[in-house]
Amino acid sequence: MNMEQHIAEMAARAGAACRDIALASTAAKNLVLGDVARLLREGKTSIQAENGKDLVVGREKNLSAPMLDRLALNDAVFDAMICGVEEVCALPDPIGGIAAMTRRPNGLSVGRMRVPLGVVAMIYESRPNVTIDAAALCLKAGNGVILRGGSEAINSNLALAGVLKQALSNNQIDPDCVQVVDTTDRKAIEILLQQEDAIDLVIPRGGEGLIRFVSHNSRIPVLKHYKGVCHIYVDKDADLSTATPIILNSKTQRPGVCNALEGLLVHSSVAGAFLPVIGDAFTRAGVTMAGCEKTRALYPGAEAATAEDWGTEWLSLKLCVKVVESLEEAEAYIARYGSHHTESIITENYTTAQAFLAGVDASAVMVNASTRFNDGGQLGLGAEIGISTTKLHAYGPMGLEELTTQKFIVYGSGQVRE
Amino acid sequence: MNMEQHIAEMAARAGAACRDIALASTAAKNLVLGDVARLLREGKTSIQAENGKDLVVGREKNLSAPMLDRLALNDAVFDAMICGVEEVCALPDPIGGIAAMTRRPNGLSVGRMRVPLGVVAMIYESRPNVTIDAAALCLKAGNGVILRGGSEAINSNLALAGVLKQALSNNQIDPDCVQVVDTTDRKAIEILLQQEDAIDLVIPRGGEGLIRFVSHNSRIPVLKHYKGVCHIYVDKDADLSTATPIILNSKTQRPGVCNALEGLLVHSSVAGAFLPVIGDAFTRAGVTMAGCEKTRALYPGAEAATAEDWGTEWLSLKLCVKVVESLEEAEAYIARYGSHHTESIITENYTTAQAFLAGVDASAVMVNASTRFNDGGQLGLGAEIGISTTKLHAYGPMGLEELTTQKFIVYGSGQVRE
Repeated sequence: MNMEQHIAEMAARAGAACRDIALASTAAKNLVLGDVARLLREGKTSIQAENGKDLVVGREKNLSAPMLDRLALNDAVFDAMICGVEEVCALPDPIGGIAAMTRRPNGLSVGRMRVPLGVVAMIYESRPNVTIDAAALCLKAGNGVILRGGSEAINSNLALAGVLKQALSNNQIDPDCVQVVDTTDRKAIEILLQQEDAIDLVIPRGGEGLIRFVSHNSRIPVLKHYKGVCHIYVDKDADLSTATPIILNSKTQRPGVCNALEGLLVHSSVAGAFLPVIGDAFTRAGVTMAGCEKTRALYPGAEAATAEDWGTEWLSLKLCVKVVESLEEAEAYIARYGSHHTESIITENYTTAQAFLAGVDASAVMVNASTRFNDGGQLGLGAEIGISTTKLHAYGPMGLEELTTQKFIVYGSGQVRE
Repeated sequence: MNMEQHIAEMAARAGAACRDIALASTAAKNLVLGDVARLLREGKTSIQAENGKDLVVGREKNLSAPMLDRLALNDAVFDAMICGVEEVCALPDPIGGIAAMTRRPNGLSVGRMRVPLGVVAMIYESRPNVTIDAAALCLKAGNGVILRGGSEAINSNLALAGVLKQALSNNQIDPDCVQVVDTTDRKAIEILLQQEDAIDLVIPRGGEGLIRFVSHNSRIPVLKHYKGVCHIYVDKDADLSTATPIILNSKTQRPGVCNALEGLLVHSSVAGAFLPVIGDAFTRAGVTMAGCEKTRALYPGAEAATAEDWGTEWLSLKLCVKVVESLEEAEAYIARYGSHHTESIITENYTTAQAFLAGVDASAVMVNASTRFNDGGQLGLGAEIGISTTKLHAYGPMGLEELTTQKFIVYGSGQVRE
């Protein structure tokens, strides 16, 4: 069997089996997840041994230290993975919920019932724990899942998928609901992305290169974000004592992630008072500023920003700083250089806050809060499978509900259309 | 300027202008729609003259009678178009609504604000009234719109688009919010479908060929349905006197549309009583049956169904009829031959009704009602821009709300992430 047939059959098997998990009761799905957690605990040593094989190959291939770090299923990562499954198990089941039931003039009762999407394909890079995190969310939401992790994690991923399939079998649910692409050939991704009759959604997680590759080759809807170029605007009516801790937290609490701060905009009427303060705070925290001319005039420690700096996703202890003359200029800058991810304003002015919330186009828009809160757990979704900066279906963190859809249901009593 | 540049600039202009309509107040948007209705009334004669040019060319090109019929903006179609704009004007504005505001343990208030999608591209065939119907919905939902109608309707569409642009200008909203692809070259569609940075959603309306072409060539999300292969299942516990009018209405009220009935499934325990009744009713209504062997044994007037007949979208006074042994067999048949559009059960049994509603995967699932009710107006959406049988973002009729998305908004008071 060639690879095209192999991948197409895998997708078709998931498509046929997913009805089993779609119609499973909440209790049955929770038993599966409980078994996943138990089997992970019991199989820890042998799964870590498989992970060890991947690490040996990774070192032989001279993978970078951060890549090896992401690849390692050490005790902390392993235990967090088990904990994550138990958290998903405890979340309310969205399936079957009926929203907005209304009565039509002809007596029809019309509502929308929340139902699974069908089959979700996850395409991700080195972290093998995504195999469990993503599958737990997909299964709880009643979906089949096709997992295509990084080739460097293939032994880890196959071991983890074995746990998922065993837990399904233990509870009389077709284990074909979970499929792992067992070839490391990248061609397999291209073939997978053509299986539009069997797969309902593709979620890529990883670097911008992988995400663009998936997006450009897919016939199936893709939920994604390319990058996070997040800003904070310090308004003329900001409480400057609030501003400093929020900005430092946004920039330094975890600089390598997508909701970290990459650009600071300061209103000119407070720039003289604020830039020296935040500049010194940045310096103490090891943060480098790439500033506009006005910024450098007020804080000479800032480097001169080049034209290419504006809109850069630094992912490190560096950021752009620009003095602006108005809310409108701040919004226009964000519209030009932002990535529709996370934008925050610091202000005590009611009208300005409302205007910023309504006028800025981003998956999360905040007032007087750290950009680091744009996260499914932090925003109350319980867990997240990713963040979408495209607007269809989901905009922002995606949790269980975003892995479902709604169909119309109609209760009639013999109605016909006139 | 070549066509690539021309289309790319058109999309970019819509992308830049759409902020104007996105931030427009409900009152301002309603003034625009009021002006559209008024200008259509005032310009009726001259617009119909432009439509006359298209009809002349159409006749010269030997377009079929149904195509010429769809192309004609006669008085009835014209007045219905004006009426449609006034109905959209009267609908509640979804923009700015905030759902599910909750307080997090750290005091952050988190909600989801309904916002426009951005720019919607409509790609449609001969009916020029879609130009106004679609634009009215897109503008009310705060979106820019790019209209690419059929080449045979180009003069009509340009005249109608002139009304839209004039109404925007009258109310100080950038008329670039509405763009009409003014070339009839099909290559323009291909180029349009690559403008993923400027366009947020593509909605094709027309024959299956157009929709497949759009779907296969688009880098932008597409909401669509290919076809409607709708079924009614007459359960063993059906009230047979209810079944007949529902089935006749579903099949004959308007046989050429996507929510018309194409297949009838009858439980074997009522087939003996019911098939002669419905068979005679079909015969009187001019409906031809393509039946399974059991159907033909009970109603010899039915033709023998061929293997290719099952799952056919007849769009005419013909349908498939099959006797099944159980609800499960009916559901399996629907899963195999249905198109995820509309499925209805006739039953008085509570448990069977609930099982059908939960177990059938279609954009609308009904009990004791005609399939013809799967329509935005009938289901209470006010108006519809199309029906989606894909599950992302919208599943079923799409109204104003489906032309929007939700972003997260966060009210903080200085919170930082631990």
